[in-house]
Amino acid sequence: MGRVVVEVMPKPEILDPQGKAVVGALPRLGFTQFSGVRQGKRFELEVDGEVTSEVLDAARQAAETLLSNPVIEDVVRVADASEESAGAVA
Amino acid sequence: MGRVVVEVMPKPEILDPQGKAVVGALPRLGFTQFSGVRQGKRFELEVDGEVTSEVLDAARQAAETLLSNPVIEDVVRVADASEESAGAVA
Repeated sequence: MGRVVVEVMPKPEILDPQGKAVVGALPRLGFTQFSGVRQGKRFELEVDGEVTSEVLDAARQAAETLLSNPVIEDVVRVADASEESAGAVA
Repeated sequence: MGRVVVEVMPKPEILDPQGKAVVGALPRLGFTQFSGVRQGKRFELEVDGEVTSEVLDAARQAAETLLSNPVIEDVVRVADASEESAGAVA
């Protein structure tokens, strides 16, 4: 079974209150290395067969129309992730 | 300036109502290729200097403690993304 990963981030010029909350909380927990945080979304789309270029094209279209709001978000990645095992930390 | 990407997904056994909503909407928009959708989170952590192994270790710790809820979510990726340009669709 194939899997396509779609990743969406808020555009740089858009305020990101969730990211702001995280960047405020990090130093209170002892993480002082990070100067900024942006929070976006990651979708895993499952495909019954293989991830062909048609499937990737459909995923790209879905990413631009349904999975992201193009006014405030950028699609930063649409990729075949059939080989990636969920739960593995790279 | 460096950047670390942290990706978090709901555990497979956890219900994901956002993913369910997306998988229900896809065929109504003509996307019939996808049999399942899971929705998770993607964080971009900015670092003033380079992304050293210490920074990656701190990001991994932050991912497990602040950025994810280990009861219901898995950290699926913690990686140096300094080279990735935001907005590029792979």
